[in-house]
Amino acid sequence: MGKKMNILMFSGEYDKALAALILANTAKEMNMDVTMFFAFWGLCLVRDPNKMTDEDKTSYEKMFANFTPRGIEYLPLSKMNMGGIGKKMLKSMMNENDTPSLDKFLQGAINKGVNMYGCKLSVEVMGFSKEELLPEVKIITAEEYLKDAIESDMQLFI
Amino acid sequence: MGKKMNILMFSGEYDKALAALILANTAKEMNMDVTMFFAFWGLCLVRDPNKMTDEDKTSYEKMFANFTPRGIEYLPLSKMNMGGIGKKMLKSMMNENDTPSLDKFLQGAINKGVNMYGCKLSVEVMGFSKEELLPEVKIITAEEYLKDAIESDMQLFI
Amino acid sequence: MGKKMNILMFSGEYDKALAALILANTAKEMNMDVTMFFAFWGLCLVRDPNKMTDEDKTSYEKMFANFTPRGIEYLPLSKMNMGGIGKKMLKSMMNENDTPSLDKFLQGAINKGVNMYGCKLSVEVMGFSKEELLPEVKIITAEEYLKDAIESDMQLFI
Repeated sequence: MGKKMNILMFSGEYDKALAALILANTAKEMNMDVTMFFAFWGLCLVRDPNKMTDEDKTSYEKMFANFTPRGIEYLPLSKMNMGGIGKKMLKSMMNENDTPSLDKFLQGAINKGVNMYGCKLSVEVMGFSKEELLPEVKIITAEEYLKDAIESDMQLFI
Repeated sequence: MGKKMNILMFSGEYDKALAALILANTAKEMNMDVTMFFAFWGLCLVRDPNKMTDEDKTSYEKMFANFTPRGIEYLPLSKMNMGGIGKKMLKSMMNENDTPSLDKFLQGAINKGVNMYGCKLSVEVMGFSKEELLPEVKIITAEEYLKDAIESDMQLFI
Repeated sequence: MGKKMNILMFSGEYDKALAALILANTAKEMNMDVTMFFAFWGLCLVRDPNKMTDEDKTSYEKMFANFTPRGIEYLPLSKMNMGGIGKKMLKSMMNENDTPSLDKFLQGAINKGVNMYGCKLSVEVMGFSKEELLPEVKIITAEEYLKDAIESDMQLFI
């Protein structure tokens, strides 16, 4: 009777992504079942930086795709980003403390078997194609998210 | 034995309001009982744009009422608002994808019977009167919110 | 069989801190067991303004410590802070409404026996020492947080 955690990842910021992924990795190490549902800005965490395409995009969708972070290491801080200086500081401080970088936590979560879901409506509105996201991400509806979340022992909106 | 979802809507931003209302509508379609508790900036989602009044307001309350969004369609984006351009882009992209606008989701939630509550303390501190909010919104205390939330199967702070 | 609420306090903003502490105080008055886990910017809520030190800090850690709010009353608003004007307005409006100030709510939460925990990794990365935080704050790991949270009846990420 494993416990189950569900995270709705709405924000597209480095520090919030770090918090969410540390929780996801830690919960898996405690043998919990973990789901991450990426919606809106949260989709930027699971974009594949090498697979951006302008194909089949309207002009707004192209602009949008180009203005938003192209992958997890490109996310800004939610506070004190200061054009990237704050983020550099944080990354350097993490490094001195032997804390892995954000993409390592993401890869760890995938390797440990965290369920990675992308929000169908967000993908459609933002004009992303499934191929632009990491291959481990499965697209599901808000209803499927709610089915998973309501049966979980804890739910966080990050 | 219906399931129950409780959302504490703290933020006053277009994209977060959209996420919350999509979840609320979807949960009702799945026959869940749904409560939304609007506090602080979240109260801006349930202001009636046509019922602003300066009556009985201190000068700070007047300033506050005039600086904050006067209804759900006036909310800014949490990211990339860019003086309204980002929001226009998002609304246009939602429209191309046949996604209803935010006020439609709000009306849908009300019609489907989502419990709409406003935070008593927030209303008092911000100097709003009950008459300035949508008529479906009932004012309750933090204690009443907690009674509802603690008995719910999932709780989100948005 | 008391109910149990767990708050992960990630944000370092006046209004969000107010919301979290009102919930924590109210829940204790309802005889719930309450845990607050302060991580990342949330640590700024439990810094002791009179115990800042540059000892044993790297230069980045010094900069960081000096750029971030030195205690709960120094937190900015998440919206409309306007260089402090918005916050002054809010505080004045709270005062007119006889709402206690933020540090009173914090002290109340401590006095009522809210479990106050600081995130070990955040403390290390940010270069804070235990002595710079309020004495009631115990440092725990993400795993210890999750053990507490998963056994709670409600969890919020604020």
